[in-house]
Amino acid sequence: MGLHEAVIKPHEQLAAHLAAKLEAVNILIRARMASRHAPRIPQVTAHLVEAGGKRLRPMLTLATADLCGYTGDFDVHLAATVEFIHTATLLHDDVVDESAQRRGRPTANLLWDNKSSVLVGDYLFARAFQLMVETGSLRVLDILANASATIAEGEVLQLTAARDLATTEDIYLQVVRGKTAALFSAATEVGGVIAGAPEDQVGALFEYGDALGIAFQIVDDLLDYQGDARATGKNVGDDFRERKLTLPVIKAVAAANATERAFWSRTIEKGDQQSGDLEHALQLLHAHGALDRTRAEALGWTTRAKTALDHLPDHPVRRMLFDLADYVVARIS
Amino acid sequence: MGLHEAVIKPHEQLAAHLAAKLEAVNILIRARMASRHAPRIPQVTAHLVEAGGKRLRPMLTLATADLCGYTGDFDVHLAATVEFIHTATLLHDDVVDESAQRRGRPTANLLWDNKSSVLVGDYLFARAFQLMVETGSLRVLDILANASATIAEGEVLQLTAARDLATTEDIYLQVVRGKTAALFSAATEVGGVIAGAPEDQVGALFEYGDALGIAFQIVDDLLDYQGDARATGKNVGDDFRERKLTLPVIKAVAAANATERAFWSRTIEKGDQQSGDLEHALQLLHAHGALDRTRAEALGWTTRAKTALDHLPDHPVRRMLFDLADYVVARIS
Repeated sequence: MGLHEAVIKPHEQLAAHLAAKLEAVNILIRARMASRHAPRIPQVTAHLVEAGGKRLRPMLTLATADLCGYTGDFDVHLAATVEFIHTATLLHDDVVDESAQRRGRPTANLLWDNKSSVLVGDYLFARAFQLMVETGSLRVLDILANASATIAEGEVLQLTAARDLATTEDIYLQVVRGKTAALFSAATEVGGVIAGAPEDQVGALFEYGDALGIAFQIVDDLLDYQGDARATGKNVGDDFRERKLTLPVIKAVAAANATERAFWSRTIEKGDQQSGDLEHALQLLHAHGALDRTRAEALGWTTRAKTALDHLPDHPVRRMLFDLADYVVARIS
Repeated sequence: MGLHEAVIKPHEQLAAHLAAKLEAVNILIRARMASRHAPRIPQVTAHLVEAGGKRLRPMLTLATADLCGYTGDFDVHLAATVEFIHTATLLHDDVVDESAQRRGRPTANLLWDNKSSVLVGDYLFARAFQLMVETGSLRVLDILANASATIAEGEVLQLTAARDLATTEDIYLQVVRGKTAALFSAATEVGGVIAGAPEDQVGALFEYGDALGIAFQIVDDLLDYQGDARATGKNVGDDFRERKLTLPVIKAVAAANATERAFWSRTIEKGDQQSGDLEHALQLLHAHGALDRTRAEALGWTTRAKTALDHLPDHPVRRMLFDLADYVVARIS
């Protein structure tokens, strides 16, 4: 790998390759977040949409449509749809989690109020469906309606499973599919569908998005216990302090003896945390190899994502999607 | 009108006429509110859906499809869709309004929490779109996606216009179209669309639902100042205490002299309410004929609703819809 390639990250390569389409997506988003009657709507939306996110999900739709040879304009509609659904879920998540910060800035629920976040989220969700209807594809509507139901179901499951030490890796996977992978896989699948790609390619695109989304979330949960705050923007132990049962802790709990189990019960289930508890938690995670085993799972999903790409046409975008899968786990390697 | 007809209310006549279809709607709702992974979802949904509401909106879809000669099964899907969208908006409204009671029972946000209400609302909204996709009608999806956007926009407008004495009757009408009439008119319009009714009939059904919904909300706002708590379940003055600018107050503010304006500014805008203020507000509403003029507007919308029915086929359901429009305002006559 030459010096030039080494410094350009895969999502930046994709952004450069898709620059004209991404600009069209931005224009469409700005046009559709307007409201003739309620200026609060574009204010709240712009705060999130223009906060400098990577546009990863809409890029996946544009990239997969391109990879399958699409030459029309509806990929732009679908990319905007995916970004609207993502933004709506962020607005609602921040209300549910009572978050004060996102991407290093105050959240909308803090700047305005919970009411605005709930209602503007609803508005964006409705706008997303209007954009889909314009494509005239019932199959696209089906995929994204299903993804939306899976997202909400995953969030409710996370709510009820939170802080419950009985949470299994299966439940964790369902939550991750809901909160992250469902929109990734829908974004990649609709790119193939709108391009009229053969079924085996559409299926492979779904597999790629699903595995990429799961790897992405596992890495996120891992970084919470071993990340570099300067690089990730997260403080080590946030999930522990918020008593979230993520994969590293689930693995450590499964291997725990009675004393260790009592520790997890006190800190996660009961929320009685004292000075030194985070350090002890990290010690237990290391003792049981929970971080290494979590990393191995993330790498396994990355491999699945890359293998799915074998079914897709030879195309510069295919290489970028391959590199993107590696990049997602490179943060922990 | 004979004794027998006199005691059966129009919505009960409709329910009797549509009994088999309504039962199919209830079965479909119960099937689709299930969640394999998150039992919290059917719990929260059942609390609202099975609380003994009148099922007015789904009944409008079944009735209008029947009126236009529909003999298929998708009217049941669309009626369940409309009820799911309605239930989702109720869940989110109660979070936004911080309500503790609905239909005489504790709200879901009180029984569970705001998080569950937000996320279960999102789930039902996604489920509603799945049901629509199953009908295979892009036009139905278009109508209900537009209605959903109008509902959310109306709620945001209400949020930002609330307590602002500059609120005009035009803004009030936009809010009412959003919060109430948009789902009524979508419910009646899709009934005609799924039946394949001619365009003039579909247009008339939209007009009927729009006018009925507006009359319904104006009457609701009027009853807040002159209702019988035993009959309406609302206490006189709730909107005043919650500082809502509804049509009677907007009319009284428009006709206010400087002293009266100062009174409204103190009580509604600043929220500084003292003992005797509600009585004084009622006195001002009467002095300016604001209640009588509000009642006249409700009657005007009822007339529009009934006139729209002229364009529809002669059918027992048409008479029931006609009587329903009268019944909506009979509560204040």
